[in-house]
Amino acid sequence: MENKTDFQYPHTFVLLGASGDLAKKKIYPTIWYLFRDNLLPRHTKFVGYARTKQTMAEVKEKCKKYIKVRPGEEDKLEEFWQANEYFAGSYDKRIDYEMLNQLIHKHEKGPVANRIFYLAVPPTLFEDVTVNIRNACVSLKGFTRVIIEKPFGRDDVTSDKLSNHLAGLFKEEQIYRIDHYLGKEMVQNLMTLRFANQIFNPSWNRENIASVLISFKEPFGTEGRGGYFDDFGIIRDVMQNHLLQILSLVAMEKPVTLNPNDIRDEKVKVLRHIQPINLNDILVGQYIGNPDGQGEETSGYLQDPTVPNDSVTATYALAALWINNARWQGVPFILRCGKALNERKAEVRIQYKDVPGDIFDSNAKRNELVIRVQPGEALYLKLMSKSPGMKFDLVETELDLTYSLRYRKADVPDAYERLILDVFTGTQMHFVRNDELKEAWRIFTPILKELEEKHIKPVPYVYGSRGPLEADSKLAEYDFKYSGSYKWKKPTLS
Amino acid sequence: MENKTDFQYPHTFVLLGASGDLAKKKIYPTIWYLFRDNLLPRHTKFVGYARTKQTMAEVKEKCKKYIKVRPGEEDKLEEFWQANEYFAGSYDKRIDYEMLNQLIHKHEKGPVANRIFYLAVPPTLFEDVTVNIRNACVSLKGFTRVIIEKPFGRDDVTSDKLSNHLAGLFKEEQIYRIDHYLGKEMVQNLMTLRFANQIFNPSWNRENIASVLISFKEPFGTEGRGGYFDDFGIIRDVMQNHLLQILSLVAMEKPVTLNPNDIRDEKVKVLRHIQPINLNDILVGQYIGNPDGQGEETSGYLQDPTVPNDSVTATYALAALWINNARWQGVPFILRCGKALNERKAEVRIQYKDVPGDIFDSNAKRNELVIRVQPGEALYLKLMSKSPGMKFDLVETELDLTYSLRYRKADVPDAYERLILDVFTGTQMHFVRNDELKEAWRIFTPILKELEEKHIKPVPYVYGSRGPLEADSKLAEYDFKYSGSYKWKKPTLS
Amino acid sequence: MENKTDFQYPHTFVLLGASGDLAKKKIYPTIWYLFRDNLLPRHTKFVGYARTKQTMAEVKEKCKKYIKVRPGEEDKLEEFWQANEYFAGSYDKRIDYEMLNQLIHKHEKGPVANRIFYLAVPPTLFEDVTVNIRNACVSLKGFTRVIIEKPFGRDDVTSDKLSNHLAGLFKEEQIYRIDHYLGKEMVQNLMTLRFANQIFNPSWNRENIASVLISFKEPFGTEGRGGYFDDFGIIRDVMQNHLLQILSLVAMEKPVTLNPNDIRDEKVKVLRHIQPINLNDILVGQYIGNPDGQGEETSGYLQDPTVPNDSVTATYALAALWINNARWQGVPFILRCGKALNERKAEVRIQYKDVPGDIFDSNAKRNELVIRVQPGEALYLKLMSKSPGMKFDLVETELDLTYSLRYRKADVPDAYERLILDVFTGTQMHFVRNDELKEAWRIFTPILKELEEKHIKPVPYVYGSRGPLEADSKLAEYDFKYSGSYKWKKPTLS
Amino acid sequence: MENKTDFQYPHTFVLLGASGDLAKKKIYPTIWYLFRDNLLPRHTKFVGYARTKQTMAEVKEKCKKYIKVRPGEEDKLEEFWQANEYFAGSYDKRIDYEMLNQLIHKHEKGPVANRIFYLAVPPTLFEDVTVNIRNACVSLKGFTRVIIEKPFGRDDVTSDKLSNHLAGLFKEEQIYRIDHYLGKEMVQNLMTLRFANQIFNPSWNRENIASVLISFKEPFGTEGRGGYFDDFGIIRDVMQNHLLQILSLVAMEKPVTLNPNDIRDEKVKVLRHIQPINLNDILVGQYIGNPDGQGEETSGYLQDPTVPNDSVTATYALAALWINNARWQGVPFILRCGKALNERKAEVRIQYKDVPGDIFDSNAKRNELVIRVQPGEALYLKLMSKSPGMKFDLVETELDLTYSLRYRKADVPDAYERLILDVFTGTQMHFVRNDELKEAWRIFTPILKELEEKHIKPVPYVYGSRGPLEADSKLAEYDFKYSGSYKWKKPTLS
Repeated sequence: MENKTDFQYPHTFVLLGASGDLAKKKIYPTIWYLFRDNLLPRHTKFVGYARTKQTMAEVKEKCKKYIKVRPGEEDKLEEFWQANEYFAGSYDKRIDYEMLNQLIHKHEKGPVANRIFYLAVPPTLFEDVTVNIRNACVSLKGFTRVIIEKPFGRDDVTSDKLSNHLAGLFKEEQIYRIDHYLGKEMVQNLMTLRFANQIFNPSWNRENIASVLISFKEPFGTEGRGGYFDDFGIIRDVMQNHLLQILSLVAMEKPVTLNPNDIRDEKVKVLRHIQPINLNDILVGQYIGNPDGQGEETSGYLQDPTVPNDSVTATYALAALWINNARWQGVPFILRCGKALNERKAEVRIQYKDVPGDIFDSNAKRNELVIRVQPGEALYLKLMSKSPGMKFDLVETELDLTYSLRYRKADVPDAYERLILDVFTGTQMHFVRNDELKEAWRIFTPILKELEEKHIKPVPYVYGSRGPLEADSKLAEYDFKYSGSYKWKKPTLS
Repeated sequence: MENKTDFQYPHTFVLLGASGDLAKKKIYPTIWYLFRDNLLPRHTKFVGYARTKQTMAEVKEKCKKYIKVRPGEEDKLEEFWQANEYFAGSYDKRIDYEMLNQLIHKHEKGPVANRIFYLAVPPTLFEDVTVNIRNACVSLKGFTRVIIEKPFGRDDVTSDKLSNHLAGLFKEEQIYRIDHYLGKEMVQNLMTLRFANQIFNPSWNRENIASVLISFKEPFGTEGRGGYFDDFGIIRDVMQNHLLQILSLVAMEKPVTLNPNDIRDEKVKVLRHIQPINLNDILVGQYIGNPDGQGEETSGYLQDPTVPNDSVTATYALAALWINNARWQGVPFILRCGKALNERKAEVRIQYKDVPGDIFDSNAKRNELVIRVQPGEALYLKLMSKSPGMKFDLVETELDLTYSLRYRKADVPDAYERLILDVFTGTQMHFVRNDELKEAWRIFTPILKELEEKHIKPVPYVYGSRGPLEADSKLAEYDFKYSGSYKWKKPTLS
Repeated sequence: MENKTDFQYPHTFVLLGASGDLAKKKIYPTIWYLFRDNLLPRHTKFVGYARTKQTMAEVKEKCKKYIKVRPGEEDKLEEFWQANEYFAGSYDKRIDYEMLNQLIHKHEKGPVANRIFYLAVPPTLFEDVTVNIRNACVSLKGFTRVIIEKPFGRDDVTSDKLSNHLAGLFKEEQIYRIDHYLGKEMVQNLMTLRFANQIFNPSWNRENIASVLISFKEPFGTEGRGGYFDDFGIIRDVMQNHLLQILSLVAMEKPVTLNPNDIRDEKVKVLRHIQPINLNDILVGQYIGNPDGQGEETSGYLQDPTVPNDSVTATYALAALWINNARWQGVPFILRCGKALNERKAEVRIQYKDVPGDIFDSNAKRNELVIRVQPGEALYLKLMSKSPGMKFDLVETELDLTYSLRYRKADVPDAYERLILDVFTGTQMHFVRNDELKEAWRIFTPILKELEEKHIKPVPYVYGSRGPLEADSKLAEYDFKYSGSYKWKKPTLS
Repeated sequence: MENKTDFQYPHTFVLLGASGDLAKKKIYPTIWYLFRDNLLPRHTKFVGYARTKQTMAEVKEKCKKYIKVRPGEEDKLEEFWQANEYFAGSYDKRIDYEMLNQLIHKHEKGPVANRIFYLAVPPTLFEDVTVNIRNACVSLKGFTRVIIEKPFGRDDVTSDKLSNHLAGLFKEEQIYRIDHYLGKEMVQNLMTLRFANQIFNPSWNRENIASVLISFKEPFGTEGRGGYFDDFGIIRDVMQNHLLQILSLVAMEKPVTLNPNDIRDEKVKVLRHIQPINLNDILVGQYIGNPDGQGEETSGYLQDPTVPNDSVTATYALAALWINNARWQGVPFILRCGKALNERKAEVRIQYKDVPGDIFDSNAKRNELVIRVQPGEALYLKLMSKSPGMKFDLVETELDLTYSLRYRKADVPDAYERLILDVFTGTQMHFVRNDELKEAWRIFTPILKELEEKHIKPVPYVYGSRGPLEADSKLAEYDFKYSGSYKWKKPTLS
């Protein structure tokens, strides 16, 4: 799948929106790590582009506190900055892009030269920027690839509009839609776990699995900057993209090969089996301040000065999706995400059914296979064991693979690093294809519209809590049993 | 299953063969631990019985170095010895047993009193002792239970003879045949793992499991005392009882209830599906000295002065058993045991089949579920995971439950402790029933006879090695893939 | 299983109750057919025994209209009667049995002679008759077997009493409890269908089967002789024995071998997984006259002069039984039986679940495997097929095996013939073992008691109807879908 | 899927090659039947086109003996011919097509008018004809669809060339590649049988199915006209298209919907799992004359005067294909076809595995599900049943659905009728898509090349026999058990 044959030739990585937050906090650090570890093509130039007029020295200064430099790497860092240029231009004038083109062109010796454009710009600029890249900056002797970040529209209509716009300019294989969850170690591991392990095969289905819970929890709220968020809400921000992507990897059929298009064919197929979400199948919440909390915790979402007083935007959502195919019919896939909750966690929890024909007087709890995406990558299988000792009782325990106990931290790279490297090697496996996006909006647009049109008020939940109390009964309704009797503990040496 | 309602009444535990090795090394320590932990009925008396004339003081002295006493337990120990008596008598004279009876009787106040007889005597004495117990020592106001140790005969005929003899004296529910492997934590855990965990259910069969390997390895040879062993050999000593018992627990169908007789009904059923072992399905070995070794290691089995020079007794054996039922047809159950090998280990290794329709270019190794019985109880599942890092490669890893990382050592009691306590509570689950024994001999007698009659010479293997080289190809023949690419490592905190 | 080695020796078949209805209508004709077809041991004598004083000529005369004789068989019939004797004696006097013994003894030349006693007598006589047989008539040089007919008690207590009584006199292998449904061709076929056909194996379970409906329907009522029936009711008369026996054959696990005891072990096991029937899980009915009917049809059960006016005895019952094992948990086994219904039929109907992940817009009806026991033995599988023609629609059709289209009528013998022959050959496979009976009463006694004690009134249904209307909703509740869209038609040649 | 909304508008069906054999024997009769049964759009005109100059009267005359007219249909037939025109033109001159266009145009009143072109011409003309249709005859106010007949190339290269040529002229949804086997009732039924019947679901896989045999047998040879055939051979003529198409329907995964593209996506997927055929996996034969036969039968393939004397063209082939996916790995799909065999038959035979854990002493034969495509559509399931009668033996029997016993002949239309109607309604489900064809040639081209390049001599078999004797051992090798003990018999009423 990976193709490094081009790595000998010049590459240019253009970062549009180079003066913004995403650029300095995430993209510059990421390309530095890739550069530092010699993962990129040797002759790669980096060009920052934005409206702000600034020098490279200023760029360096802004990035400084986000870029980690270990002792002894100072020279390498200097080398990195030497490979960087910054160019100030407008986003809407072709002439500026033509000058950018000339700048790029200068480095492009030899018969082949490739270009990657990273659009770290607001969605309002997508159209202008892409048209101008297409008209003035495509590589004439190599590939041109465009990386775009969400949001990809805010509903089916706006998303289709964007897709059609892009399709008029680039081929699908030139477009890299980032969903950074697809770059996470444990998300990338899902396909391996499922398809390289015979033990999971025969039970990965409606006969054996009761429910699947995919969670994303953040322990902080909007921190006074909820203005942008309020326009989107948690469903658009997290559920419709990140969580649905994970769902499709958990639920999809085995692809014919590991070729990215074969994988994405199957992801689309499983999404097509999902009906738009029903209002009965969703619970939305909005956090309120915790009077007993400290600082930020005391402040509810509506107290955020950038949020309208009567906002019904969800900061928490729990929805059940139903996949009407032979493997999954009747198994709820529960997506759950929220801000201002009790912990930071993203995980997939596959809960098995109770053992039929029980001979243990109902003392056996359900098996769970848990894939912890963050923080602290881990895979563990909750199971029942004989209680050690003289008795023949049951006890919950687990088979565990905690990454930090097995692998060095450095072994697990950041999502952005992988994904940007993938763009260089032309690996689209972990990027969102046009038709996936279309299906995602087909599933979510009706409920988003209904919530908005009916102005449905989210249920309140306290900052720092586990979420709305109503969520527990909702989970029970979807055959997810929460016993509370067990809590994972990191194994400790005796 | 357990019945402690009788625990208020007097009990007497008679240890026949009280002056022997088993008694002092194993039984006295065991009953001390049970006594110390207050697990036995309050009014329990212990009576040692043997031909040797000795005082209690002498008994105490002999046992001293085998009995572990932690600081602060000295008084309790004294209390224990106070509850002990020793009585010297012949094994074949009824009169002596009548005196023993009177001795016991003295303590038996009240309406109910129970008696347990532990026969720590050579098999040649079984008949005399049991007849005399029956005639002179049975409890008239409570239960009488008899514990016997292997060997239970040396083939089908002699075993049947013993069984018939016992059946003429006691009911099956009075007879407790010890196979101490049935007292081990992880062996007792097998039923729980299998029947209380839905995740294993759908794959526990011929469709998904390639082979099952049940191993027993000892790192030492006969140590110059091979005389007794030579008469039996490793097959009778380990395979026909311990390993076959484990096999029956791994392979049996789910019992109707956890009632001991329901469990043993199913164990017998699975044994009935096994044909007697074919000569093609067995490999026998005998260890030779390792010239590069040290001390004992340099000495082969035949160099043991107590062993005949031309002995063809196996010190190593590997046999495949076939269970011709719907669940297991075609899956080899490989029993493997040997002395003078490279390590001490007893484990069950369930190897899954390769994933059909592989999409990983044959890079996926097989899953294995390993139940380590000793040393260091553990359960782990070998599986394939994405190699952490930038690549999309596969790596072998495992989900692990190492008992020493989860539970305190004290939580896992010794096999004998459990089993003797079971006799007090009348729990026959972990004891061998008459018909199980019969099936075991039906399976093994023909091959034992054939090996003896044809005087088949075992293949030699070097002391301290992994066993005969021939074993590897034999394993491959039985669809057990040994990759050698992976070795379990205890997880370590970073 | 069958053993004909004894067939060279003399046999005596004693029919107690020889002057009764069962004898003349069923037993005499049956032994005649067996005799005619040379299926019995050559030297078999038949002795009728009853209180009535009569000659053989009178016996012959009474039987005449029930015995079918085809042209050319007249001599054979004469031969048959020559092999018969009749002996009048009381049922309770030992002296009479001693004379019977002498009579039998006369024919018993040679070293071996076997005796079979068929008790065609009311249950009140069971004890006397069996004690006397035991005391005066057992064979001293061969086997003695006793055949008994239901009722085997009327609840757990009375049944246990009878069992204990019999166990005190005979070994279980001497006792042949007849449930004549076990002699029916299609009931005997159940084990073959299930265990000799791989196609049914993987779907014979809770994952694929929605419900199992076992029906017995009679088109006539009590016909003015409901007195005896009223004391028992349809549950005891049909459901607790015939239908439950069929259930156990449909639901049991595969036995280790076809040995009768292995089979019955599994039948008992599956019964042990069934809880006593709950009042919610039963519907009882009683027929009323059909004002539009003719003759008998106009008369309800309570109009039967031999039935008490306020009788709440059920003439119809529908009950759901739940088998709490790994194969069947959650699958209702619906037993349904009734008198005065719209047709005569006994069948097993295994209804499969809907196809998960349907792609046919819910147009696919459920598969059903139907085993018709009577009348007209047949096996057919209802399935969905493409509607023949230009359209791509679905149509219900079936794969069919109607016995009358494949086999000559003569090929399918009567239940009694098989069963009596089985007694001669010592095949207990199709007879009810002691512990089966015990489990059957364990399941049914509580609900029978509750119905009686609470005096629960059965719902009325019209003579000649499909049963109570309430039954349809009850079936729906148990996930049995009755579409009414399809009716089996005998295939006809075009 | 079907779309009849256009049926109100004018349609023109142009038959190119109207003077040829296919036209008169198959296409004219077929469109007549569709016309007769009022299945086509009301205003449909038929235009014959060919080089031959002839009048409509001559066309009618030629078709006469192939067109079935039942009494009373004479007027309708006349009406049909009135709707026909004939136009003589060259295949390579644009001017002629322009005149054809004008001819068509005359009838096309109204806002919408559709055109269908049926290419009943030799493959050498495909390019000219399609280019000219594209340039001169496409509908300007409706759809233009092109139907083509095999051969679609003779290997991967020539097929790709044709595909690319067509793709340059028409969109895939305009191209209808006919494989007339896809029009057969039982082939069309495959998807329904598989996906609308829950009973087959759980066994339709490698765990339960031993092998799948797809056969095509013809009872006649080349009949002196083997010239054309010799250039292609039986593999290209039957196996690579008809039999492979059936294979893909038997083996494919369930599509997301019944939408033609979803179906064909899955067909392509299953073909992609098949490796090119290995020389070891094929057996080729060539028939020789039967000296004991009559007429044609005495003459071998090489005696056909139009066939080269040293031809190694196969008239019989048997090949095993392996589908390396999770469902089918290890299950041979055996394609078998031949001329001059003992019977005419096309069928799919799915042979189940032996029952594991057999309790019937190996007396159970394997289940087979047989789908008979021709002649005499039927579906039957071979199974084991208790031998009716007194014994407890096994007997082979079957559950049967013979169409002629259930449905009127008229209900089952001819393949061409369906397919041509499908073109009118725009249903591509039963037509071969570009990528299917590509996969088919990928699988077959290497073996075809190898057979030709190595000039591998086919094994001889006698005209009228079951084929080469070597085929039986080949079948056995592929785990197809042929017992010969059973022969299907049409059920007959007793």
